[in-house]
Amino acid sequence: MSERRRKFYAWGFEDQTATAEEMAPVLDTWHRVFGTDFEVTPAPTLETIEMRAPRITAIPAALTGICRQDRYERALHAYGRSFLDGARMFRGDFTRAPDVVAYPRTEDDIRALLDWAGGIGAAVIPFGGGSSVVGGVNPEIEGDYAGVVTIDMWHMNRLLEVDQVSRSARVQAGVYGPDLERQLKEHGLTLRHFPQSFELSTLGGWIATRAAGHFASNATYIDDYVESIRMVTPQGVSESRRLPASGAGPSPDRFVMGTEGSIGIITEAWIRVLNRPRFKVGATLVFDDYHRAAEAVRAISQSGLQPANCRLIDALEAGHTKAYEGGKPILVLGYESAHYPVDDLLRLTVELCADYGGSPVETSDRPEARSAVAGQWRNAFIRGPYYREHMIARGICRETFETAVPWSGFPELHGSVVRTVDEAIRRVTGRAGTVTCRFTHIYPNGPAPYFTFHCLPDRARMAEQCMEIKVAAYDAVMKAGGTITHHHAVGRLHMPWYVEQRPKLIGAAFAAAKRALDPAGIMNPGVIVPEADIAAWRPVPAEREAVAAS
Amino acid sequence: MSERRRKFYAWGFEDQTATAEEMAPVLDTWHRVFGTDFEVTPAPTLETIEMRAPRITAIPAALTGICRQDRYERALHAYGRSFLDGARMFRGDFTRAPDVVAYPRTEDDIRALLDWAGGIGAAVIPFGGGSSVVGGVNPEIEGDYAGVVTIDMWHMNRLLEVDQVSRSARVQAGVYGPDLERQLKEHGLTLRHFPQSFELSTLGGWIATRAAGHFASNATYIDDYVESIRMVTPQGVSESRRLPASGAGPSPDRFVMGTEGSIGIITEAWIRVLNRPRFKVGATLVFDDYHRAAEAVRAISQSGLQPANCRLIDALEAGHTKAYEGGKPILVLGYESAHYPVDDLLRLTVELCADYGGSPVETSDRPEARSAVAGQWRNAFIRGPYYREHMIARGICRETFETAVPWSGFPELHGSVVRTVDEAIRRVTGRAGTVTCRFTHIYPNGPAPYFTFHCLPDRARMAEQCMEIKVAAYDAVMKAGGTITHHHAVGRLHMPWYVEQRPKLIGAAFAAAKRALDPAGIMNPGVIVPEADIAAWRPVPAEREAVAAS
Repeated sequence: MSERRRKFYAWGFEDQTATAEEMAPVLDTWHRVFGTDFEVTPAPTLETIEMRAPRITAIPAALTGICRQDRYERALHAYGRSFLDGARMFRGDFTRAPDVVAYPRTEDDIRALLDWAGGIGAAVIPFGGGSSVVGGVNPEIEGDYAGVVTIDMWHMNRLLEVDQVSRSARVQAGVYGPDLERQLKEHGLTLRHFPQSFELSTLGGWIATRAAGHFASNATYIDDYVESIRMVTPQGVSESRRLPASGAGPSPDRFVMGTEGSIGIITEAWIRVLNRPRFKVGATLVFDDYHRAAEAVRAISQSGLQPANCRLIDALEAGHTKAYEGGKPILVLGYESAHYPVDDLLRLTVELCADYGGSPVETSDRPEARSAVAGQWRNAFIRGPYYREHMIARGICRETFETAVPWSGFPELHGSVVRTVDEAIRRVTGRAGTVTCRFTHIYPNGPAPYFTFHCLPDRARMAEQCMEIKVAAYDAVMKAGGTITHHHAVGRLHMPWYVEQRPKLIGAAFAAAKRALDPAGIMNPGVIVPEADIAAWRPVPAEREAVAAS
Repeated sequence: MSERRRKFYAWGFEDQTATAEEMAPVLDTWHRVFGTDFEVTPAPTLETIEMRAPRITAIPAALTGICRQDRYERALHAYGRSFLDGARMFRGDFTRAPDVVAYPRTEDDIRALLDWAGGIGAAVIPFGGGSSVVGGVNPEIEGDYAGVVTIDMWHMNRLLEVDQVSRSARVQAGVYGPDLERQLKEHGLTLRHFPQSFELSTLGGWIATRAAGHFASNATYIDDYVESIRMVTPQGVSESRRLPASGAGPSPDRFVMGTEGSIGIITEAWIRVLNRPRFKVGATLVFDDYHRAAEAVRAISQSGLQPANCRLIDALEAGHTKAYEGGKPILVLGYESAHYPVDDLLRLTVELCADYGGSPVETSDRPEARSAVAGQWRNAFIRGPYYREHMIARGICRETFETAVPWSGFPELHGSVVRTVDEAIRRVTGRAGTVTCRFTHIYPNGPAPYFTFHCLPDRARMAEQCMEIKVAAYDAVMKAGGTITHHHAVGRLHMPWYVEQRPKLIGAAFAAAKRALDPAGIMNPGVIVPEADIAAWRPVPAEREAVAAS
């Protein structure tokens, strides 16, 4: 729909990728780890991929202008952007592509699309940047639906209003991260919400999935930056009052956040923005012992110091990313403020770390001259998604999963998860892989550990073998008292464990709430509310009833 | 149920009240303001109050041991503790007292009570400390219920478990504030959640009503200190997983918080606790101009400084409380930390205030020697509830209401509300009163203004005249874009405005969710979900159906 097209089978736009120079050190690492060279599978092309004909063929005249059914559009919306998705895309399996891709420009367009989909009994999948790594946008729906209409919010991308006095902005939900920051910058403002998906994810997607962003401590979930939400549901438009805080009943916004498209499509939000930071300081510390380092992070999290960045990266991951190759865990620390110097806070934090054997490897107070270790880490973090297609092409499985757990449960969870995944990799792939851990966010009562594993699965069964390892990992996380996700959301991938985690009665309450807003049961079926729950009350669509009766 | 009984018609226990010495300066203020002496109405007694016979007479044998129907217990649970409640209590109107007061000791007791109430079609009102100022515990129910069973959580008051590593504690919901702090102190911990109702409110009440506490900025709602919730609903027990954070779907705890007893009774919670503060500093500033002072507070709220205390008190209120009688607004500031000195943060804040014409009237860095102005203010704040019965006895109406609004809307809201209430007092009571404002909490995007008004209503119609003024105030708050409540909750009093504020579709979703958890429609009817919505699906109780059929 734009001049610049997104790549249909991988991260980024068609004019973007990781260069050979950029990939060389990455591939060198995995060449050394696995002791082998990698044969390169060619990327899929629109001509070679497998895709069935659309099941929906009659689009109402009023909607044809915003609906697409060509191979490119259907392929682009067939998957999210996890390794699992990539492995299946490289295999050319686009059989479950959506039947229609719609690009609304207004809320009226969305209402018309929902009315139409409800009438014909088609499922609707809201689509922001499509960066889901949990199958949130994948049209993998079992129920008896007429087809799938994916609604891409691409065109609804404008900053509509700025309230400088209240440091707030009203923004359309389809705006991508960089475009949002560009528009805010014109007003001297920023949201500073930088999930790894930042470049290819949207404000609406962040809110629908409760994304966690830039800040390692204190308010980091997008939840804390939302002032009000406007949403189109099959029953009509809902908009909450714009307020800094309210104790009037359960928060309507908290009720919407995390529904992942299962009750409606977020179209706009008032968000709380910030002044651009003027003061930034950072330091990287190295520790002799991983669990002592974790104790240091616990002490920081309980001190009230609230660093903007506080990433504990284990020795192996620091080495893999070439951030630090001294074989020890590192802690990347940062403070920032738009208003006052933060050097003292960093100094206090570094002093605190000394009690746990942490010593600085470098310090930088010049934001423009980012320190080498932290800079290398940051680069690997931001560029990581671009590496994926090159890794998949070489048959290297790189997957991640993340959780949060009380501090008292962390050592056991960490040990159990690393052991489980190590064993699962050996069992499933027949050879050793690697498992590493970093903290993405910290809280006074627990960390959010983020695990990455690499292995060499059977080329013909990459997705299946990866999934087998993930199932073992998820089971271990849940058994150790963690959450199935800290910020990757639920999607379709995490549903079995989400259903286990969520209180059963609260699940029943949400299902009832969904039914009130989505009586035809068409909104992202199988996400948050299990398909079986929807099937219990979903009406047979009127048109098909008529057919059956005739 | 205990040796030490709560006063049935006013704030506090029977052995507590404000002394004549304590009341003298308070009454002196109002004598000067209104230019009159006050005749004293005697307090109601158990013998003189009006109360109908219980409508429920047959209590199952298994429950008689925990159920009470004597006049004292029924009177104690007939009202919350607002001025409106007090005026009606002094009038002796206890006609709507609950029919049964139950004191469960276990969750099984609660389950048995809910089963019984559901079976006979009785309404259930969960009762913590009974400090509601919005009719949350008042048995003012219009629907066709067999009677009202109030469940007082008094006995469920123990600290069950401490996780020192994760700074978390598992606590029964019926614990009162001081008892909670006493039990936590034995472990060197504190929650530091100090709403004005602290002495006579419970953890479960705070969670059910989304109470706001001690901290003026950053995380202040109890919401942010809840790790998991355990609740008994008519459909069974629900318990969320104990987690520092989770992005798995809409937060189950946020869904429960704010339901005010309308879906179940909270029995336990894991809460995030703190180390006791070691560093405390405070300062009080005086400003020439109120709106310049508000601008200073806005600058503080947007600076990231996050003071623990930041109360802007207008000139009139500072004078009434005798905190500062120089006829100017004051700002009471405080910082605290368990871990590091906070002097610099206070210094930066005071410097920032200077840009807005704020100058210190005093500074104290010795917590044991609380400064005179801040100390006098704090005393008036904590003792205020004890003054109420003496004010009511003298015919003085003192009521409060509170809101939150974006900074850009504050000047208009403030002007409009003060003007509206001033006019309403004159119109309704025939003479001038006073309206004052302070900030209780601040956010980067807006303040939480708290209004207090005093007037001299007609003695025979104190509650009615006060309510007429409040209706005008609430209408003005809503018209100016505020919330109907920042932390007083919804109860029965705020329902009309809550229904206006809440998105209509979200209201429908909550009603459907309630129906799933409370199919008999017995849980605190009329609170959060309007009685009319419940009546639409509430079944006729089986016993009465049988009677009708016979």
